[in-house]
Amino acid sequence: MDDRLAAELIRRLFELEPRSHGVQRRLYLALRHAVLRVELPGGAALPASRMLSAELGIGRSTVVRVYEQLLAEGYLRSATGSGTFVSDSLRMRRPSAGRSTASMHARTGLSTRGSRIAAQAGSSPFQAGAFVPGVPDVSHFPFAIWRRLVARQIRHERRQLAHYGFGGYGPLRQALAEYLRVTRMMSVRPQQILILNGAHQAIDLCARMLCDEGDSVWMEDPGYWGARSVLDACGLSIDPVAVDEQGMDASAALEPSAPRLIFVSPSSQYPTGVVMSLERRLHLLERARAAGAWIIEDDYDNELRYHPHAVGSLFGLDPGQKVIYVRTFSKVMFPGLRLAYLVVPERLVDPFARGNAELYREGRMIEQAAMAEFIDAGHFTRHLRRMRGLYQERRDRLSEAIESRLGGLVVTHGGQAGLHLLYRFTRELDDAALADRTLREGIVFRPLTLYYRDPARGAPGMNLGFAAVPVERMAPAVDVLAGAIEAELQRAPRHRTRSGG
Amino acid sequence: MDDRLAAELIRRLFELEPRSHGVQRRLYLALRHAVLRVELPGGAALPASRMLSAELGIGRSTVVRVYEQLLAEGYLRSATGSGTFVSDSLRMRRPSAGRSTASMHARTGLSTRGSRIAAQAGSSPFQAGAFVPGVPDVSHFPFAIWRRLVARQIRHERRQLAHYGFGGYGPLRQALAEYLRVTRMMSVRPQQILILNGAHQAIDLCARMLCDEGDSVWMEDPGYWGARSVLDACGLSIDPVAVDEQGMDASAALEPSAPRLIFVSPSSQYPTGVVMSLERRLHLLERARAAGAWIIEDDYDNELRYHPHAVGSLFGLDPGQKVIYVRTFSKVMFPGLRLAYLVVPERLVDPFARGNAELYREGRMIEQAAMAEFIDAGHFTRHLRRMRGLYQERRDRLSEAIESRLGGLVVTHGGQAGLHLLYRFTRELDDAALADRTLREGIVFRPLTLYYRDPARGAPGMNLGFAAVPVERMAPAVDVLAGAIEAELQRAPRHRTRSGG
Repeated sequence: MDDRLAAELIRRLFELEPRSHGVQRRLYLALRHAVLRVELPGGAALPASRMLSAELGIGRSTVVRVYEQLLAEGYLRSATGSGTFVSDSLRMRRPSAGRSTASMHARTGLSTRGSRIAAQAGSSPFQAGAFVPGVPDVSHFPFAIWRRLVARQIRHERRQLAHYGFGGYGPLRQALAEYLRVTRMMSVRPQQILILNGAHQAIDLCARMLCDEGDSVWMEDPGYWGARSVLDACGLSIDPVAVDEQGMDASAALEPSAPRLIFVSPSSQYPTGVVMSLERRLHLLERARAAGAWIIEDDYDNELRYHPHAVGSLFGLDPGQKVIYVRTFSKVMFPGLRLAYLVVPERLVDPFARGNAELYREGRMIEQAAMAEFIDAGHFTRHLRRMRGLYQERRDRLSEAIESRLGGLVVTHGGQAGLHLLYRFTRELDDAALADRTLREGIVFRPLTLYYRDPARGAPGMNLGFAAVPVERMAPAVDVLAGAIEAELQRAPRHRTRSGG
Repeated sequence: MDDRLAAELIRRLFELEPRSHGVQRRLYLALRHAVLRVELPGGAALPASRMLSAELGIGRSTVVRVYEQLLAEGYLRSATGSGTFVSDSLRMRRPSAGRSTASMHARTGLSTRGSRIAAQAGSSPFQAGAFVPGVPDVSHFPFAIWRRLVARQIRHERRQLAHYGFGGYGPLRQALAEYLRVTRMMSVRPQQILILNGAHQAIDLCARMLCDEGDSVWMEDPGYWGARSVLDACGLSIDPVAVDEQGMDASAALEPSAPRLIFVSPSSQYPTGVVMSLERRLHLLERARAAGAWIIEDDYDNELRYHPHAVGSLFGLDPGQKVIYVRTFSKVMFPGLRLAYLVVPERLVDPFARGNAELYREGRMIEQAAMAEFIDAGHFTRHLRRMRGLYQERRDRLSEAIESRLGGLVVTHGGQAGLHLLYRFTRELDDAALADRTLREGIVFRPLTLYYRDPARGAPGMNLGFAAVPVERMAPAVDVLAGAIEAELQRAPRHRTRSGG
């Protein structure tokens, strides 16, 4: 783990310790916590004391004293000339790798469902640096504009915005209807647009309103882990459907399987980036019609498209009105905003709005009003245009660096849109073990096998997020990655030893 | 329905109509929509044209023209000297009363679960006026302070707040740990506090992490409809447990029933306001221990307590660490804020944080940071103290007005804390029909029977929210209520004719 990641992690833990303890005790507890819970793995380098003291805003001598205490207690070890490290004797499997549903169930008293949710959790604690996928570069977000727009809404005269709201803020739904008309050729009434707190909630609402426990859902395989977790937590039975160079292949689905729901990302399949062909789209709609199934179309990163020819939405192609369209602002605004929206067919408008109010209660009209202004005043389009240029350059740099360092070892997928490039290995390699190895050196990526329903049967590879990596850091980060791949290839036994599944 | 409510409703619908239509067409569509979907019920008075034109910011002549058109088309009728009304020929049951799970299922293609969620939906579209329960008076919220605090967080230098976050913003969790220690004598580490988007999400998370489909949950009967909907949507089987003057009576639960979860509001039972006795608390903990059950303690309005002797939390009384504590900011800040928190036992900290990230993704660190400052700088305590005084006066005025107008007809419950008073009728009366009647005159209340698992077996009464009613409006509103009760008592047949159940 590199200094910056480690310092960020330590700061977060430090802030959680009670202030009444004083800074030295707090830092001591935070670090011990990090080591014992293997948030800093054995062998990981600690940030230099100067850097950490700056990060935490405390005296450097305090940091040095705490390091010394933990060295004395055996939590840390120091190597002359190269710094301070987490003691190797504490090296162990990260808890995420060792978690088992059964043991969690017994230890904590969680339900079977809860144990499964916690054990399968795929969300990463890392949200910056090379190569965390799905993370935009928030340092280029126009915070000054956003602050002004939000502040303008928080006024006594606008106090109706302090209430729950129902379905979402009218002008935002209008702005989005217009935006979808122009950019996605979708003709929808504002009422069909439901504002939600992120794509996970949107998927959860669809699953609960449209499916009963035990219903079958088709998911692309590989596919988005988050959607899988949410659908699984709703009690759905997930049928993985293979993806090829034309997208999800409905004809590859098991014949007797009649899905109740189909989750698909046709504009840019996640994580492979494949654009679903028109033939496949029509076939999918036909299969859905025959089965009486609903379709969730996840249009997650179509706004960050690097080629001008956008593909139409599945929603617009469906005369049967069985498609529900999901889109998030997380990638194009900032993740912590937690705003997303659903577009639903007319007959679902009322029950979905009711269901949403009932299950989650609505609100956050202040942020929604600011978002409406952000779009109406042109800031949204401007920000998108700017980020598209920036990300395209980063994508190209990553592509070049990988080509020059790992040319024969990987095959590239995607990159037409979005925040990541996907690489499959041409040689047998344990991508999860590789991810563990690179993490220690400060490089985070998501192994491709984790996107499969059964990781043991998935193709090994790397999902590399390039969006939050400045161009000058691209080549050095790829160097680290290449070194780790080399080391992993040389490690015996060479066959894959992936645990779990 | 009174002018203010109707004008608010029309404005909301008006804002949803496409701007491209021009104001006259938009108002026409909004009004027709309101009438056809029975959002303005048959017989309801429309706002005077002058008032509506001011509310919408459009010319009065436009309003008059639209009224005239709708009069011509038969949607409206006018009565000389008293105004314009929704046509009586369009009088029908509100859709909420006529909705049936089966018909919705067939018509929309929702799942059985989804149809049930939508059909049972209890959240009110009204969020202001006499006597909407659970709604604080946001006009007294210090928006200027809140604006400053939020704006301070939206800065380029604080851009780490734009990311997802994990478990919640550290300083807010610290501030709450300290606050709970001082006000609720709870000794918890900040890590045990999980920040969530409202109480519904908090209950949903508990239900999914701790219970499997089909598990039994005990709920107070009458109890909070929102919790019931959320628990039901998670597939739990709800066992109603009677409430008496000591609170939930666990000994009244069916003997063979071994709950997996118990949902309870011991500090101030919702909606009866009963404070659970110590004996009952100990008994409940013992029953839970014997059954291996978890307890959710909903401490929803203890902060607005009008008597100084606060009762300790159940959480603090439990050596077995089986209690999870839920609290929302909706009532004490403003509803649309959507911030609430859970306090969980140590062994649940990690799986709950993971589950929360997985099911909903976290974020909203900007609002959380502002909330932390709001507490740390003393604004929260100051605002609470102010509102407590204000609400106490309103409660007293409501109490007096009811006593003088409805003395022998009702028995009062609660009022020690919170935003509402509960009244049971001493005579047989259809409270749902009464609510329909008063709605037409602009008075909204929630019938007590709706808080029961089986409304047909519930005691009839009224939950009257007083918090958002200025003192000068209290007596006139109670006059309307009293008139409606009189009319309802005189209506034949006198026995209850509640439909559904």
